[in-house]
Amino acid sequence: MSMHNTQNRNLLTLRHLGIDTYQQHVVFIRSDSAVCRSLGFAAQSRVEVRLRDRVLNATVNMVRSDLIGAGEVSLSESAWRHLGAQAGDQVELTIAAPVQSFSHLRSKVYGQRLDSPALLEIVTDIAAGRYSDLHLSAFVTACAGDRLDLAETVALTKAMIDVGQRLRWSVPQIMDKHCVGGLPGNRTTPIVVAIVAAHGLVIPKTSSRAITSPAGTADTMEMLAPVTLDSASMRRVVDQEGGCVVWGATAGLSPADDVLVRVERPLELDSEGQLIASVLSKKAAAGATHVVIDIPVGPTAKLRSAAAAESLRHRLEEVGRTVGLEVRAVISDGTQPVGRGIGPALEAWDVLSVLRGEAGAPADLRQRSLALAGLILELAQSVPRGLGVQQAEVLLESGQAWRKFQAICAAQGGMREPPRARYTHPITASRAGRVVRIDNRRLARAAKLAGAPQASAAGIEYLAPLGILVEAGQPLFILHAEAPGVLAYALDYINSQPDILTFEPQS
Amino acid sequence: MSMHNTQNRNLLTLRHLGIDTYQQHVVFIRSDSAVCRSLGFAAQSRVEVRLRDRVLNATVNMVRSDLIGAGEVSLSESAWRHLGAQAGDQVELTIAAPVQSFSHLRSKVYGQRLDSPALLEIVTDIAAGRYSDLHLSAFVTACAGDRLDLAETVALTKAMIDVGQRLRWSVPQIMDKHCVGGLPGNRTTPIVVAIVAAHGLVIPKTSSRAITSPAGTADTMEMLAPVTLDSASMRRVVDQEGGCVVWGATAGLSPADDVLVRVERPLELDSEGQLIASVLSKKAAAGATHVVIDIPVGPTAKLRSAAAAESLRHRLEEVGRTVGLEVRAVISDGTQPVGRGIGPALEAWDVLSVLRGEAGAPADLRQRSLALAGLILELAQSVPRGLGVQQAEVLLESGQAWRKFQAICAAQGGMREPPRARYTHPITASRAGRVVRIDNRRLARAAKLAGAPQASAAGIEYLAPLGILVEAGQPLFILHAEAPGVLAYALDYINSQPDILTFEPQS
Repeated sequence: MSMHNTQNRNLLTLRHLGIDTYQQHVVFIRSDSAVCRSLGFAAQSRVEVRLRDRVLNATVNMVRSDLIGAGEVSLSESAWRHLGAQAGDQVELTIAAPVQSFSHLRSKVYGQRLDSPALLEIVTDIAAGRYSDLHLSAFVTACAGDRLDLAETVALTKAMIDVGQRLRWSVPQIMDKHCVGGLPGNRTTPIVVAIVAAHGLVIPKTSSRAITSPAGTADTMEMLAPVTLDSASMRRVVDQEGGCVVWGATAGLSPADDVLVRVERPLELDSEGQLIASVLSKKAAAGATHVVIDIPVGPTAKLRSAAAAESLRHRLEEVGRTVGLEVRAVISDGTQPVGRGIGPALEAWDVLSVLRGEAGAPADLRQRSLALAGLILELAQSVPRGLGVQQAEVLLESGQAWRKFQAICAAQGGMREPPRARYTHPITASRAGRVVRIDNRRLARAAKLAGAPQASAAGIEYLAPLGILVEAGQPLFILHAEAPGVLAYALDYINSQPDILTFEPQS
Repeated sequence: MSMHNTQNRNLLTLRHLGIDTYQQHVVFIRSDSAVCRSLGFAAQSRVEVRLRDRVLNATVNMVRSDLIGAGEVSLSESAWRHLGAQAGDQVELTIAAPVQSFSHLRSKVYGQRLDSPALLEIVTDIAAGRYSDLHLSAFVTACAGDRLDLAETVALTKAMIDVGQRLRWSVPQIMDKHCVGGLPGNRTTPIVVAIVAAHGLVIPKTSSRAITSPAGTADTMEMLAPVTLDSASMRRVVDQEGGCVVWGATAGLSPADDVLVRVERPLELDSEGQLIASVLSKKAAAGATHVVIDIPVGPTAKLRSAAAAESLRHRLEEVGRTVGLEVRAVISDGTQPVGRGIGPALEAWDVLSVLRGEAGAPADLRQRSLALAGLILELAQSVPRGLGVQQAEVLLESGQAWRKFQAICAAQGGMREPPRARYTHPITASRAGRVVRIDNRRLARAAKLAGAPQASAAGIEYLAPLGILVEAGQPLFILHAEAPGVLAYALDYINSQPDILTFEPQS
């Protein structure tokens, strides 16, 4: 149809404005431009933006001023990067095609089950950036809690694997580990990877950034070495050292997960099905064959009851089997933070002290790392059953794990020292007593209010483990912040929350 | 605490950029500015913006260029208007307080019931603009379908009434009407208001703009007279003429509803509970005492089954009683469009032809208007039972209703003529046959793709009612558009949807 050609000639010149909308693609167009009039764009319209061979969907922000010219257009920073744009490039704008998978999304919102083709359509559209933030939020909400059943969880996991790259390795056994989170400071991964790789197994670890926590493993590892490696660089590191700890998003593995995580973070919603699909799709896409998963349980951890943890453990192993992964999930103590640091840099310091075998290294972090590493050695059948922890301890104490870790950091682009915060403030006990309960969630919230994980040196240095007897005036934890405003803000929060720690008076 | 004062001195100078983000409040700040560093803002942070006595929450977009200076800040157009800002004003930025009602929102997402205090907190925060688009979407999704029970629906309705203004009138009986929608073109309201006001009853009608349809009553009425009246102007019109048809949002009635509608529109989600709360909160806030509600039922109307319509009818009357409204809901035929026009201006032309008693006026629109007006007269007990329609007909045929309508338009700011579209394109029958089914949803979608309601002259002129016998080549409907691009786009859609109309071949 000849009229259609008018759509193909909507070329506009790119102008750089430098507006960062945090990964939501936005296009800025003059409201009085010919392209707006001819295509009927309005604020919040979804449009397709094409530059050479790259294309994305974006939300329209109308410019009602001379900020840009009538023949010009601008893009948010994420869209600019995604298209590989240069100022002066000509981009083509058309009305975005209706997103067919929205009808599946609506079905799910109304309580209907989704089958594999429907979930694949949704995940494909999400990975391609066709969902606006509103629609992403609706999908996350519709799947929250226990609203995905086993079949849906399997289908979502497979779909998330299928729409991204999948790494292939030349050895038959590829080890991996994961922690379900919710426990501040529990940063075993860099230590476990160092031990397992030092043993000679292959463990190409892709980690995520924080979703609702004060630090993700990728955030912490980034304090010690670069983590934004493409898949070729990651492969080089693993070929050379047998292990790595990189940020998964840059490797193109399960790209839909990265989009969803961005929306889940501010919503602070959990979903068993999405959790399983997120974890296992990343593992399968990274080429893992054997996966150990740590599930901490405690009244203020992500998993609050042994029954819920048991259900998750069972479902992780079941979905794992269906998608071809040997999964061993273990339930661990989740009643208090692990190590002393909470926040990217503070946790990195803990990791260093364990690997270096320092006298003051946190014993709990060391023990948990050895337990997980030992289990991986056993799951790989590379040590006799029951001897995994012992072998892990040998590798750690001999310095082999520390040397391996330094080699991995060097291969990832160079080891570096974590930053220290400019502002600190101790929180002291107002009276003597024994610490009998710790609210991990409020502790994590305080660390986040202090700036973690965006402010990498920010967070909490935790000093009062369960059972310890404290004197009045003794420091319980120390707030770290990079700016006085957020430090004050975190202090306000802590002062308004007397129950972050519970004391039992001593007679 | 002395550190706190640093937060209070984050004054920045307002610069106008003119970026329209469609009512989502956005603040643009330099990423390298002192305020970002001292408060730890990041892209997508929520901040509180204060200008003199006005305050709002906004989402941060970081500016990574010299678009604005380090001591400057800009606001999206909606935030600019909301604060009554002028370029050069000094605004104060602080970290937005944590939104306490998010915990209630999460409870609802996880399937728990919400009580009255929880819903009041949520609605208060929504009306105050404290919810980001992500959180609004999560709330709409969590309440979608039938996920609000009777008690929650009553509580939501009361909360939505309570957080806005409530109009009080000097007469004891205030009439109102509403249509549950889903039926293209069914624009009875302006006609009903004219008849009821001509009879001497008081009917201060506040209407909404389109949510998922090609036109809302406010969109259509705006083609004939101004509809954005404040509550003082609305009161003056009603005092003078006994009736009005204005856009509800500007009167400050149920402001949370206006926020929710903005998110519901792109999501295209329905919710029985939110529908009832939306309708009845607007009515109660407008001071109505007696409300007639039209519920069209048909396979492609909003209500698809008699049972669902009956359930909604029952619940509307029940919730109405609880919040002090005498509600009469009637179920009507929803199998095909009413009148000929679909789209703001096209529907306005239909309204005019019925009120003027033109020979070619759509008989179905006239009859439905008389039925609803008659019911209102009876509900007010101002005519004997069974004689309502007859009295309504007298008022219409005598020209009293038309004179009343002209007077109302004049009082609202002056009557005007609806626009005509610059581009039209007839859709013709490819073969002869009898029209036996009409897909209202796809017809409405085609009208929207042609530009309605944003492009006010756009839409569909519908010519082939159910049962009509058409010849091959006979026009079935005519697309109207204001731009060739959207016309082509709507045509593409129509060509891809052969089942918009179903024909039975005639032997």
